[in-house]
Amino acid sequence: MAKELTSRSENYSQWYNDLVVKADLADNSAVRGCMVIKPYGYAIWEKMQAELDRMFKETGHVNAYFPLFIPKSFFSKEASHVEGFAKECAVVTHYRLMNDPNGKGIIVDPDAKLEEELIVRPTSETIIWNTYKTWIQSYRDLPLLINQWANVVRWEMRTRLFLRTTEFLWQEGHTAHATRQEALEETERMVNVYATFVENFMALPVVKGAKSANERFAGALETYTIEALMQDGKALQSGTSHFLGQNFAKAFDVRFATKEGTEDFVWATSWGVSTRLMGALIMAHSDDNGLVLPPKLAPFQVVIVPIYKQAEQLDAISEKVDSIVVKLKALGISVKYDKSDNKKPGWKFAEYELKGVPVRIAIGPRDLENGTVEVARRDTLEKQVISMDGIDLYIQQLLNDIQENIYNKAFAFRKEMTTPVETYEEFKEVLQNKGGFISAHWDGTSETEQKIKDETKATIRCIPFDQVSETGKCMYSGKPSTGRVLFALSY
Amino acid sequence: MAKELTSRSENYSQWYNDLVVKADLADNSAVRGCMVIKPYGYAIWEKMQAELDRMFKETGHVNAYFPLFIPKSFFSKEASHVEGFAKECAVVTHYRLMNDPNGKGIIVDPDAKLEEELIVRPTSETIIWNTYKTWIQSYRDLPLLINQWANVVRWEMRTRLFLRTTEFLWQEGHTAHATRQEALEETERMVNVYATFVENFMALPVVKGAKSANERFAGALETYTIEALMQDGKALQSGTSHFLGQNFAKAFDVRFATKEGTEDFVWATSWGVSTRLMGALIMAHSDDNGLVLPPKLAPFQVVIVPIYKQAEQLDAISEKVDSIVVKLKALGISVKYDKSDNKKPGWKFAEYELKGVPVRIAIGPRDLENGTVEVARRDTLEKQVISMDGIDLYIQQLLNDIQENIYNKAFAFRKEMTTPVETYEEFKEVLQNKGGFISAHWDGTSETEQKIKDETKATIRCIPFDQVSETGKCMYSGKPSTGRVLFALSY
Repeated sequence: MAKELTSRSENYSQWYNDLVVKADLADNSAVRGCMVIKPYGYAIWEKMQAELDRMFKETGHVNAYFPLFIPKSFFSKEASHVEGFAKECAVVTHYRLMNDPNGKGIIVDPDAKLEEELIVRPTSETIIWNTYKTWIQSYRDLPLLINQWANVVRWEMRTRLFLRTTEFLWQEGHTAHATRQEALEETERMVNVYATFVENFMALPVVKGAKSANERFAGALETYTIEALMQDGKALQSGTSHFLGQNFAKAFDVRFATKEGTEDFVWATSWGVSTRLMGALIMAHSDDNGLVLPPKLAPFQVVIVPIYKQAEQLDAISEKVDSIVVKLKALGISVKYDKSDNKKPGWKFAEYELKGVPVRIAIGPRDLENGTVEVARRDTLEKQVISMDGIDLYIQQLLNDIQENIYNKAFAFRKEMTTPVETYEEFKEVLQNKGGFISAHWDGTSETEQKIKDETKATIRCIPFDQVSETGKCMYSGKPSTGRVLFALSY
Repeated sequence: MAKELTSRSENYSQWYNDLVVKADLADNSAVRGCMVIKPYGYAIWEKMQAELDRMFKETGHVNAYFPLFIPKSFFSKEASHVEGFAKECAVVTHYRLMNDPNGKGIIVDPDAKLEEELIVRPTSETIIWNTYKTWIQSYRDLPLLINQWANVVRWEMRTRLFLRTTEFLWQEGHTAHATRQEALEETERMVNVYATFVENFMALPVVKGAKSANERFAGALETYTIEALMQDGKALQSGTSHFLGQNFAKAFDVRFATKEGTEDFVWATSWGVSTRLMGALIMAHSDDNGLVLPPKLAPFQVVIVPIYKQAEQLDAISEKVDSIVVKLKALGISVKYDKSDNKKPGWKFAEYELKGVPVRIAIGPRDLENGTVEVARRDTLEKQVISMDGIDLYIQQLLNDIQENIYNKAFAFRKEMTTPVETYEEFKEVLQNKGGFISAHWDGTSETEQKIKDETKATIRCIPFDQVSETGKCMYSGKPSTGRVLFALSY
């Protein structure tokens, strides 16, 4: 096969890179760190978007669009935000090009220098809160529940397709509330929406929890996160929801008249997921043969491949297939019938395995005689010969089974790869030899977390929402702790 | 009323600006020339997007995503493209900010200068054809039918919300073909898709035709356009589809092995519509009371307003309304029941008129007694008292009628405002006193067109596809002409 992948055991990182490119998901571009999302990859992203967008709307949110550019001075307004964000980003300094007077192509027109530089948004809190100032006067204007689908740019030094790219696509929710309590509830609501989406659609179990102060979003009082485990034992932060308190309202002077006739600053949240989810989806489930896609996000769920020698055989097969396609579509199942004649069945089998199509149906002349088809499922690679009668309902059930099986497999893996430890020695041993989530006591200080990170590269992925109250001693400092947190190496 | 608009007759341009802001469609932002698309405006854009996206997919296209940034040198590769495009655009020169050593906020880090400047895409032909080079080797890789939904930036000196903004949202299709004929067919297919969309969904008749050389896209051999007429008699170019020949393939060296075993450059098209369509939608149909939205694009098609004094009356009304809402939703009609108690019915009536909601239903205590509702249609402002029995089917029919009526009104207006002229004197007279499309003979030269433009500001909007072959003399030069073209002042 021309498209063979590096195996996971040989080199997990190379396997991932191979897979993304060979399964036609994305490609590097001529622009450093920026990717091209190819049609097959984009089709998965569109399915994610559609589902998330539906969930946002069901929870009362509306979409809007804010400018790509942010005046440089805006970043200085929220002190901790500028520290965390405003450094590595694309800066627009000029607004015109001109013909090189020496005839060598085009150059930047030195006369077209902006008075104030514009930053390509790395995130939009500042421009949005500057806008909210004009939209919010009274409690009647609240809550404001707005989401934006957009591209953002962060000038990353080391990039990897989907996981960390200079430009990426995301959604960012920015909500404004009259009370602290309401904003906190929104922060929690949205991390729950993310968890539901990732578990139900991406078939990937996540741990929900709060970030430690070190790992919080720049400008947030609280960051909630969903953390997923990849097959190499590293964690991947898959979505975050931030309680911003009144920080941005104060920075941009957004006050409102309360119901009680007083004046107060507005309470804020922001929350986002990005094309990074594509990386999580790929890494969590796929194998050495290629992608494994959960049926709910597969661009097409079923592929049908005819096996034939003569054209008359193909005609007879196609007639049967057409009726199967109609029945599958009636059940809302997306299906591709690949009767292209310039590729052999074996090539097609490998190609659709590489692309993670959940179910493959093959039909040959003998199947026609017997009234059967061969059904192969991508997750387990099992094949079965099935009667054509009732094939539609069989496939429908099979797709549900596959979705569930992929989730269960990932869940079992995470369970197996979550290890409680009592001592720092044990921690380092597990981190080095096993990986995964390590559940340990921590004294709650930034200093201890930083030292552990410096020594091992592991960070606290979250303080789980379902943390059990348990008296213990910090594995590092020996100081008292009231519950375990999850450490891991991470993407 | 707080939200009164400038009237169209008083100042059409101010009326438009007022309407966009007061109907909550868009707002100016803190960034020069960039707009904020507000939730109500964005909801209309989402409906346009959904419909166009469906039409693109039905005609065999898939979506993908290409980088926001384009290396400066790419623009020099296609000679006429650089002339037309690469000048007024946002230039990224640096990739990092730093704290001002003098403690005054943040400054651009002089050490973080890019070796080659990046241009924020004004359109993506160059980066996409640079990518296609790696995707296309053989005729088997063709056609490539790709669309992208994206933001683009053109540094416009004079901007107007939706009509001309520095940043705008659009879709750009970029297709690659094995033959000239196939690319030409695609160019025509897509201008037809646009025309169908604008006529069927935006309820706006358009003239389809070809651009003269002067008005062609930079780098195209042929530009097809749809031109719509606004209420002030100016034309608005609403969508374009370009036949690019082999220009970009040659510039980026994209060759393919033909079926016949030879090698050839790939044939290209590109086509796009943008948030400018929002401007067309607003300007074409709306009146001095506010927006008039075609039902097919209205964020909600029906609003129901209760008229009551006591809370018990509201309860009784709401009970009835709930059953109406269920019935309307079952027919796929979107409906909002506004029982907010901090606004009077009169305020609500004006507000929903301003926002162009196609149908308003009012229900008061007397209606409850009589089993009736009051139905008002936005397009004609007519009111009727209607029985609650069968109200759902009545509304369904009414929405169809409104969609049709809005189209017919615009069609009649355009007909009335399309004037054939024979002489240049007559041309100038009509242009000044009546406006609209002027159908005239032209000698086919760029020089004549340019002179007419210099003298009158009018341009050739298109050479209509349905041009009648007719011998005549150019109204300007007196030279022979074989058919009439459409002139107009334009946005």
